[in-house]
Amino acid sequence: MTHAGGTESARVRWVSKTSTRAEATRARLFDAAVAAFAARGFHGTTTRDIASAAGMSPAALYVHHRSKEEILFLISLSGHQEVLAVLRRAAASSSDPTERLRVMMAAFAEFHARTHVHARVINYELAALSPEHLEQVVGLRNQIDAEFTAALRAGMDAGVFHVPDLPMAGRALASLGVDIARWWRPGASWTPEQIAEYYGEVALRIVGAA
Amino acid sequence: MTHAGGTESARVRWVSKTSTRAEATRARLFDAAVAAFAARGFHGTTTRDIASAAGMSPAALYVHHRSKEEILFLISLSGHQEVLAVLRRAAASSSDPTERLRVMMAAFAEFHARTHVHARVINYELAALSPEHLEQVVGLRNQIDAEFTAALRAGMDAGVFHVPDLPMAGRALASLGVDIARWWRPGASWTPEQIAEYYGEVALRIVGAA
Repeated sequence: MTHAGGTESARVRWVSKTSTRAEATRARLFDAAVAAFAARGFHGTTTRDIASAAGMSPAALYVHHRSKEEILFLISLSGHQEVLAVLRRAAASSSDPTERLRVMMAAFAEFHARTHVHARVINYELAALSPEHLEQVVGLRNQIDAEFTAALRAGMDAGVFHVPDLPMAGRALASLGVDIARWWRPGASWTPEQIAEYYGEVALRIVGAA
Repeated sequence: MTHAGGTESARVRWVSKTSTRAEATRARLFDAAVAAFAARGFHGTTTRDIASAAGMSPAALYVHHRSKEEILFLISLSGHQEVLAVLRRAAASSSDPTERLRVMMAAFAEFHARTHVHARVINYELAALSPEHLEQVVGLRNQIDAEFTAALRAGMDAGVFHVPDLPMAGRALASLGVDIARWWRPGASWTPEQIAEYYGEVALRIVGAA
């Protein structure tokens, strides 16, 4: 029993070590691909570029991913899931519609400054996804839009927001946040926190609640 | 005299025909490059792609342009010059600060919907320009920012705009307009005219004038 237990533990340790090493490799490939796609675009990047930036051969990359598109999909998926989680956390932070929208916009804006490289890839390379992968990502984008729509509707219902066209107001808020990833860079005139504070106020002005 | 005049006219006609043909070729290359850069990015596009989309050989392209980067520069230059002209025309349309900003934002937004393909290229491929070309384009971008800044300052001085941070408000307005090129497509929920009208109002809300 002791011996068998020992063997079992050793196998668990071995499997866990292997999987940790594989995960670390995939994380390295992920980061290398984000940087390459942001700098040269999906079509301007080869799997060889990604592999060599991650310190491995192109053949080794294919042990982990079937294609360059699959890596883009994983980047898109995780990025959109994070955005959605950030928005939902912010939405749950207050039951007051005005304060809720302020916190949501602040969090959304700050996130796009902090993750600006990743955010550019997930917003500018959608056309490079396969139809099936694009469908999944669009599903997440629709959920992100739905968070803004719900927040706007709550403020309209409470009579504190005044917007002539609710979907267009939602589009303007999301657009304002996404575009931060285009223009913000470390060392910009404003920190992510300053952007968060200003954009939270701008959102309230846009909905006529300020 | 008649003979010499005839020869002169023939040469003028010939030169003018040649230059018209060269201009038409350059226009075809320009359009092909805009479409290719927008679809696959600057680094994902070869001069061969551009030449063949324009119906010519790569060698023929080099008769007109020294490099792929030179074509990107011409695209960037013309795009930024047009944006600046649109903004200046709008700025000159009214002496009332509120009405002026409304017209400027409406024109800026409508322009980014109408020229969305061209606008994506000039805003997302800046890093691919040579340092000298980038400097020229940044000069135009600074002039574009200056138009918004002047419009905001006029409203502040008149006491009709209320913005906590003037440069940041200018950045938010420009950002909101530029990002339309990312999300707008023909057949979108709103026409360029509807976008113009809504964004003009949004600008006034953002500056606290609505």
